[in-house]
Amino acid sequence: MTTQELLCRAKAAKAAAAALSTQQKNALLCAMAGALCAHSGAILEANRADLGAARGHISDVMLDRLALSEARIAAMAQGMRDVAALPDPVGEELARTVRPNGLVIRKVRVAMGVIAVIYESRPNVTSDAAALCLKSGSVCVLRGGKEAIRTNRAVVDALHAGLCAQGADPALIGLVEDTSRASAAALMAARGTVDLLIPRGGKGLIRACVEQAKVPCIETGTGICHIYVDKAADLAMALAIVDNAKTSRPSVCNAAEVCLVHRDVAAAFLPMLAQRMAQKHTELRLCPRAAAVIPGTPAGPDDFDTEFLDYILAVRVVDSLEEAAAHIALHSTGHSEAIVTADKAAAEAFTRAVDSAAVYVNASTRFTDGGEFGLGCEMGISTQKLGARGPMGLAELTSYKYIVEGSGQTR
Amino acid sequence: MTTQELLCRAKAAKAAAAALSTQQKNALLCAMAGALCAHSGAILEANRADLGAARGHISDVMLDRLALSEARIAAMAQGMRDVAALPDPVGEELARTVRPNGLVIRKVRVAMGVIAVIYESRPNVTSDAAALCLKSGSVCVLRGGKEAIRTNRAVVDALHAGLCAQGADPALIGLVEDTSRASAAALMAARGTVDLLIPRGGKGLIRACVEQAKVPCIETGTGICHIYVDKAADLAMALAIVDNAKTSRPSVCNAAEVCLVHRDVAAAFLPMLAQRMAQKHTELRLCPRAAAVIPGTPAGPDDFDTEFLDYILAVRVVDSLEEAAAHIALHSTGHSEAIVTADKAAAEAFTRAVDSAAVYVNASTRFTDGGEFGLGCEMGISTQKLGARGPMGLAELTSYKYIVEGSGQTR
Repeated sequence: MTTQELLCRAKAAKAAAAALSTQQKNALLCAMAGALCAHSGAILEANRADLGAARGHISDVMLDRLALSEARIAAMAQGMRDVAALPDPVGEELARTVRPNGLVIRKVRVAMGVIAVIYESRPNVTSDAAALCLKSGSVCVLRGGKEAIRTNRAVVDALHAGLCAQGADPALIGLVEDTSRASAAALMAARGTVDLLIPRGGKGLIRACVEQAKVPCIETGTGICHIYVDKAADLAMALAIVDNAKTSRPSVCNAAEVCLVHRDVAAAFLPMLAQRMAQKHTELRLCPRAAAVIPGTPAGPDDFDTEFLDYILAVRVVDSLEEAAAHIALHSTGHSEAIVTADKAAAEAFTRAVDSAAVYVNASTRFTDGGEFGLGCEMGISTQKLGARGPMGLAELTSYKYIVEGSGQTR
Repeated sequence: MTTQELLCRAKAAKAAAAALSTQQKNALLCAMAGALCAHSGAILEANRADLGAARGHISDVMLDRLALSEARIAAMAQGMRDVAALPDPVGEELARTVRPNGLVIRKVRVAMGVIAVIYESRPNVTSDAAALCLKSGSVCVLRGGKEAIRTNRAVVDALHAGLCAQGADPALIGLVEDTSRASAAALMAARGTVDLLIPRGGKGLIRACVEQAKVPCIETGTGICHIYVDKAADLAMALAIVDNAKTSRPSVCNAAEVCLVHRDVAAAFLPMLAQRMAQKHTELRLCPRAAAVIPGTPAGPDDFDTEFLDYILAVRVVDSLEEAAAHIALHSTGHSEAIVTADKAAAEAFTRAVDSAAVYVNASTRFTDGGEFGLGCEMGISTQKLGARGPMGLAELTSYKYIVEGSGQTR
């Protein structure tokens, strides 16, 4: 099927998806979860073929992301069942007004429509995105990376088997067969069909989507997250938070990349930090004032604008909370930032001044995550201010409409 | 000042705008309203120069939109005072969760940041947009049409005088001096500075913004609105609603362009419609089945996909509510649609099936408007599903962030 045909079918299936009851959607999700497990042999075979073709062409990290196992397939199925267990966002009445002329205006949450997702090598995104879109009442159009196409096709075959067993239209979940740039461009240009485009993956992919898309798009993911250690910080707490935010999982977007330290505590805190980071094999990139206190690599011109995604931490000494906030305004990607302080006024000033999706007081930035926020799941972390911001759970994948009931009112 | 300098100043003023108290914002709005009136001489002089330069180059309708008078300036000032009287959306707590690990997560409404507005000839948009952005805590960057530049400059000079009299930074309201395509392109490309771009004006402008913008953009305005006269309609009510939706103000986006009539009532309703539309000097463009009942122009291939903005109504006979909904799904711009029916089940089926920003039962589509919806004012009508949908009042011009308070939590 061509990408255009797939888009036409997706648009045609939109009304049916939006009209599914909660019970129907949950039954479909459970049927698809069962089918994933039942088809695990075929999925693993396709995955071996993908891995064989990709070996030598992509990094070991990428190969690991691509690789499936019985356990990973079981986890994907469990993910779908977990989405079934979440409350259905569609149909919620968000507001209700009765106007002086008698019109009753209700603002009701509705499905987004057709959600296109462009992603890279992880095949679990295929089932995750399919589940989130279906539960939120939308049709999905999935366009994965070329190195995962056999696996993705086998996964979607299994999902379609689950849908068909329940008598549902397989067009509810569409997989783009063409993995060339042309198909990504077709999704970005599909005005009137794609209601929302979500890129999931590396910086290059996200930038290309945001810059080229003619359809509404949500920018996700890139996180240059900061921890500011205030002069009123509990330094042991600050150390634990920086350590966790940097080293618990450096490859994710909510990991910290920069530590800003108030000058009043620099002499006390920086040696603690240097010792701990040495234990964790984490390289420090230091501003001149920090380098005067502890050993480390002098920070280069890009080190405060880089998402390292690695065991590297940039460190800068600042004169005040205001200077920390100004540094963040200039260098942050708007994902997550934290202050460590025992001073309530400082905490309030920081949360007011910092314009990021999540602003923390005395906690690690690693909590910016759909599960940790209690959303149950997520489609990614939005770093833009239009539409969803922060973790995008089911509700963040919906829209709303106004239903206005009258008795013949004219204007 | 160059457009780039203006954008830099706007970004620098963002934090100050977001931090203004409700009282400060209201004082600024009232001061600016006063300054508009005080500067009316200079504004009218600039307006005369604009009108003189534009005469012969733009249509009479456009000239009328461009023309100001003492009364129109007084109305612009009153509009600013009306915005001052509206509740402040910034700071509202939208949700609060306490997680099992003790983290307190608050979702709080915050200012959007920098809002760029690209518009055409109406100078009242200058003060309207400035007022809405300021009250919602954002800095605005205004880029009007070249035929209104002298007037817009005089209006913004007055607004700046109002701001300065209160000791506020004039960078809160920025006017782009360059009215060439280059400045519009610069706003569309201002990633990291412009948080939201809103085009207000004709179809060409909106399409260019939506297709070319690299910053988040809201599609506004175009309305191919439908009225469906169901078989269970009160025909007198249907006639009044179609008449109002079509002829009360044909040039606006919430005016109806298409009437769909159920076959069972076509023989009774169409002659009533033909007579009323003749009285209102409104041309009918008829599908073959309607043309068999009443006189009118045969509908051409584009007549069901045209926003006439004129005394023209396309009419089609349909076999069922489902056919009406399918026609709307294919031809609507997602703005506003109405059903006229006394049948509750039909009303429910229609409001469920039709995916537009506002769906009416027994009322005119002309009510899709910020004032009529009780929002007090609006920046336009969004026809996209990401971000704001329908009339955009103050709340629809904001974003939100998560403020997470902990006591040392790590993950």
